[in-house]
Amino acid sequence: MSDLIDRLLDGLPQDAVLTDPDVTRGYAQDMAGFCDSGTPAAVVFPETVAQVQHVLRTATALRVPVVPQGARTGLSGGANAASGWLVLSLLRMNRILEIDPVNRIAVVEPGVVNAELSRVVARHGLNYPPDPSSWESCTIGGNIGTGSGGLCCVKYGTTSEYVLGLDVVLADGRLLTTGRRTAKGVAGYDLTRLFVGSEGTLGVVVRAVLALRPSPPPQLVLAAEFASTGDAGAAVCAVMEAGWTPSLMELMDTTTVRAVNALARMGLPDSTAALLLVGFDSTDPTGDLAAVAELCRAAGATDVVPAADSAESELLLEARRLALPALDSLGTTMIDDVAVPRSRLAAMLDGTAAIAAEYDLTIGVVAHAGDGNTHPVVVFDAADPDQAARARASFDAIMELGLDLGGTITGEHGVGLLKKEWLARELGPVGLEMQRRLKAAFDPDNLLNPGKLF
Amino acid sequence: MSDLIDRLLDGLPQDAVLTDPDVTRGYAQDMAGFCDSGTPAAVVFPETVAQVQHVLRTATALRVPVVPQGARTGLSGGANAASGWLVLSLLRMNRILEIDPVNRIAVVEPGVVNAELSRVVARHGLNYPPDPSSWESCTIGGNIGTGSGGLCCVKYGTTSEYVLGLDVVLADGRLLTTGRRTAKGVAGYDLTRLFVGSEGTLGVVVRAVLALRPSPPPQLVLAAEFASTGDAGAAVCAVMEAGWTPSLMELMDTTTVRAVNALARMGLPDSTAALLLVGFDSTDPTGDLAAVAELCRAAGATDVVPAADSAESELLLEARRLALPALDSLGTTMIDDVAVPRSRLAAMLDGTAAIAAEYDLTIGVVAHAGDGNTHPVVVFDAADPDQAARARASFDAIMELGLDLGGTITGEHGVGLLKKEWLARELGPVGLEMQRRLKAAFDPDNLLNPGKLF
Repeated sequence: MSDLIDRLLDGLPQDAVLTDPDVTRGYAQDMAGFCDSGTPAAVVFPETVAQVQHVLRTATALRVPVVPQGARTGLSGGANAASGWLVLSLLRMNRILEIDPVNRIAVVEPGVVNAELSRVVARHGLNYPPDPSSWESCTIGGNIGTGSGGLCCVKYGTTSEYVLGLDVVLADGRLLTTGRRTAKGVAGYDLTRLFVGSEGTLGVVVRAVLALRPSPPPQLVLAAEFASTGDAGAAVCAVMEAGWTPSLMELMDTTTVRAVNALARMGLPDSTAALLLVGFDSTDPTGDLAAVAELCRAAGATDVVPAADSAESELLLEARRLALPALDSLGTTMIDDVAVPRSRLAAMLDGTAAIAAEYDLTIGVVAHAGDGNTHPVVVFDAADPDQAARARASFDAIMELGLDLGGTITGEHGVGLLKKEWLARELGPVGLEMQRRLKAAFDPDNLLNPGKLF
Repeated sequence: MSDLIDRLLDGLPQDAVLTDPDVTRGYAQDMAGFCDSGTPAAVVFPETVAQVQHVLRTATALRVPVVPQGARTGLSGGANAASGWLVLSLLRMNRILEIDPVNRIAVVEPGVVNAELSRVVARHGLNYPPDPSSWESCTIGGNIGTGSGGLCCVKYGTTSEYVLGLDVVLADGRLLTTGRRTAKGVAGYDLTRLFVGSEGTLGVVVRAVLALRPSPPPQLVLAAEFASTGDAGAAVCAVMEAGWTPSLMELMDTTTVRAVNALARMGLPDSTAALLLVGFDSTDPTGDLAAVAELCRAAGATDVVPAADSAESELLLEARRLALPALDSLGTTMIDDVAVPRSRLAAMLDGTAAIAAEYDLTIGVVAHAGDGNTHPVVVFDAADPDQAARARASFDAIMELGLDLGGTITGEHGVGLLKKEWLARELGPVGLEMQRRLKAAFDPDNLLNPGKLF
């Protein structure tokens, strides 16, 4: 192993290579539970493209597996490292290289934090929409690796819609440039979007050209309470069928609402079966919310409260953002990420409640309702092996339910280690074989984050 | 060759296999000039997925190259067939299988005509945005193959944004299903978008799940005249920098405006250096157009005329749609498709004018100005070998100019045969090698539309 370290130090400064096992062990995991990890041989922090190339040439020469890492906020074990692996952290490559308001693009290094980019482009009247819950700490490189989403997707789509071009260091150390800086372009196969969501298994992104949008008007939000998930689901369908495009459409179930109240005394309606938040950042959000309020009432809402202004809207969003911390405060949690056609949202919620009952566990659901993307959060006592086993079993049952409803096992969190058996099930044998062939085309020695995805 | 026909007829009805060389020759080309083609061995018209599988299994068994075809409205020779090839026409697979207003998706076969889909979904209050000029005849399968754009892209993006999932028959006849029916999904590599723009070289699309949007409000359009391309380009930049998102932003140069007037007596301003059309389908298009009119005047517009209503807007669009037929009426034409950062639009227009002068040819430019996507149309006398050679040389010079300005050789028409040398130049050796590896992963025997792209 000292050969590895010596060779790494040939092209990296001393302080960019960590080798103390007590330290490297701390870089072996992201935020997912139930995923194996070990003690990495080293953690490296390159600051330049040339240094990344050096790291990958070294790893390939010595046949050492490499896992690229950002802020390790991932939820599927995609950034986990096994013993002997090399962790390639991109955190020091965190420069915003260019912001171009006329062409509405930003050029960034992978370690730029999502929220930092949002703040900087906002000064130019621009917006980078993807907004995962971890946006204050997660990196653009990590977002690209997992194809991250967030609350904005119902109107603005996911990371994939905002990546125009990439510089990628391949396993053998060569630099590949994909895509473009132009609004449109179809020159050859779309390698750019192949890298989005590839979880570090095809190459290491070292630079990205991102599309930006004009900053939207302030968002106004309403809260609608429903006595049943069926009514809430019907409201979601009615709003979308009527042709509305909200900028946000989120749902919290009873369990989640109660957890948020317990954590932060937000005064949310404890008795509601489902709380739906709908937002508009249109030119007339008040008028749009009034129309949507009518649709919610017609679908059976027991109460509909539009926010009077941005400050009230922000309070509602704050309650939504507390959903995961609130559920986390109840015990150890596993967050699932099943997306179904939005017409099946109520079936997904009811089926998840039935799974919670069957496995005798607390499962709170928070959902990007407009996208049909649910996050059932399984709460359990990790010190109780039986509960932990039931938690894992219920987690799998939720994915099975999602597939049965015509959905996917992951809307925005990725596959990583956590869902690889389920990816095989979702894709089927032909799909899986083509995924493997693609992997082999880019990484013939299987050194880039091996064993992830499939 | 009779073995091929006999085997094809084992799984296809008699009327689905054409073999008369005089007939098959008629299927050997799309709309591109300067591209080779030959006499296909047969043209087949499968009506089912199983028949497509039979065709591809047969072709692979006999090592016969296959080119999938839609309406052959392509502009890069991507659908051309060489002698001995099998033409696989998808025109009889033209059913709209499903329209789902709640989930905003349509499921279609590849032979569905773009405009037909638009008309049918409009009855459900929905919109399929991609609108290439050939929309009354081109097929969804062809649109997917080339990643087609159109006038809508400045606001709504291209075909790639609207393909959620695909059924694809691989070269060996196996059926691959990619993607999803849900709004979001990141389960494995994004094979769906890899097929978009792959020009029939990776597999044959037999079914597509398409995303739809709510029908927008009627569009209102203004026309702005400029005394110089520089002023017109500055106006485009000013509008985009100010944060507007028009639904249409098109430009015609003097040559094009005069050609349209000559063809249809539209009364367009013959003396203008550039005519810019800007449209909004927002909730207040009149107000938005007034603001944009101010920006155009500030950039030096000599006249700005907002349409009073939809009918007047439609007239302006009609003039725009006549641009290509009008230029076609001047001689044989070659349409280029270079996209540059929109800040370089004026440089692209001026450089193209210089190329026209250098090669002593008429080159009219019509552009999706908001996207920086120009279509310089080279007009020449095909019967004059010297003019034809200069036309081809000027066409290449235009691509070189586009690359020099940080652009791409193709914004929406694809590479086909016409631009393969230029694709290699745009991608560079590493990019090209990865494209070839991808091709080999999907089509190891190189039987699907071989020799296209690279």
